[in-house]
Amino acid sequence: METKGILTVVSGFSGAGKGTLMHALLQRYPDRYALSISATTRQPREGEADGREYFFKTKDEFEKMIAKDELIEYARYVENYYGTPRAYVEEMLEAGKDVILEIEVQGAMKVKKAFPDTLLLFVTPPTAEELKKRLTGRGTETAEVIGSRLCRAAEEAEGMGQYDYLIVNDKLDVCVEEMHGIIQGEHCRNFRNTQFMEKIKQDLQELKGE
Amino acid sequence: METKGILTVVSGFSGAGKGTLMHALLQRYPDRYALSISATTRQPREGEADGREYFFKTKDEFEKMIAKDELIEYARYVENYYGTPRAYVEEMLEAGKDVILEIEVQGAMKVKKAFPDTLLLFVTPPTAEELKKRLTGRGTETAEVIGSRLCRAAEEAEGMGQYDYLIVNDKLDVCVEEMHGIIQGEHCRNFRNTQFMEKIKQDLQELKGE
Repeated sequence: METKGILTVVSGFSGAGKGTLMHALLQRYPDRYALSISATTRQPREGEADGREYFFKTKDEFEKMIAKDELIEYARYVENYYGTPRAYVEEMLEAGKDVILEIEVQGAMKVKKAFPDTLLLFVTPPTAEELKKRLTGRGTETAEVIGSRLCRAAEEAEGMGQYDYLIVNDKLDVCVEEMHGIIQGEHCRNFRNTQFMEKIKQDLQELKGE
Repeated sequence: METKGILTVVSGFSGAGKGTLMHALLQRYPDRYALSISATTRQPREGEADGREYFFKTKDEFEKMIAKDELIEYARYVENYYGTPRAYVEEMLEAGKDVILEIEVQGAMKVKKAFPDTLLLFVTPPTAEELKKRLTGRGTETAEVIGSRLCRAAEEAEGMGQYDYLIVNDKLDVCVEEMHGIIQGEHCRNFRNTQFMEKIKQDLQELKGE
């Protein structure tokens, strides 16, 4: 069956627990998955290491990467660039690892366009009420902040329909296994195994003729 | 998430081990799955019970079922009718069970047409050589019989491309889990959860406005 890795994009509401979920997945199946590492022009924060949290680049270096088409997608937030270096992702995919890429809806659509076989997962809490609870946090946020987060969530929700799977993050443990099952199951999808199918068809024609 | 069962059609080469696979799946997860029971006009064989191996019908009864659209699909082989009664399948799906239906390629396409949400799985041995080995059996078959089986397999292979997933039956145990993972993962597919998505979108709009 398909032995090359699957590029898997994970998006979802802020507060849906994507980060925790992905790290739990990687911890449980370290040989199966690799996390894509973004490049950025922002300054490293304390405790962040180059090539672990991010590939830290100067603006000049980053713009050269753009020019050489070395990024699968990129975007500019405020004053900084963020992007997905192509080389690392392709290397991991070739090595047979499923590469997980956490990215917001618009970035996800760019990746899908560049790599049509990309698997798109959207993580959501079980209900909007639960999402509100998580966005409200410990009650220390102002009504304005909560309002603007809800507004953003409503925007993100509009992109949901473009994803392949919806993952309801209710219980972390169940959810990790669900995500693992989905990605592994995808390896059996027909369109990822056209070579296998062509080979067995051809071989059967030959055996039949013997 | 999707709580209604998924109608799952399993096809594949004769000799691919579909029957063994499905029974192992049902034995391991008896609460999760139900096996669709076919109706037939052929005579029961020794040890077969009505409503277990088949629903045994007279030709007249069967033709009435056809007329009343009580069969999802049916076909006639030699002198006998075989078909899939709609009522049992729908009852099991409503009860939240994933219903497994073993059927050949043409029947599968009929089911897919009647129920577009049907999940189509195709079971295959890992190689054509391995299939030949299984079709050859214990070496007691004539070259003609083996030839005609291979010919049939080559025909079946032509339908493979229309399935959603390809399941390579190499090791039974691995394969059962793979099949289980695929079917359960399908519950998270986006198009099976449009109601959930619409609800969360609507609720977010309301919460935002509060």
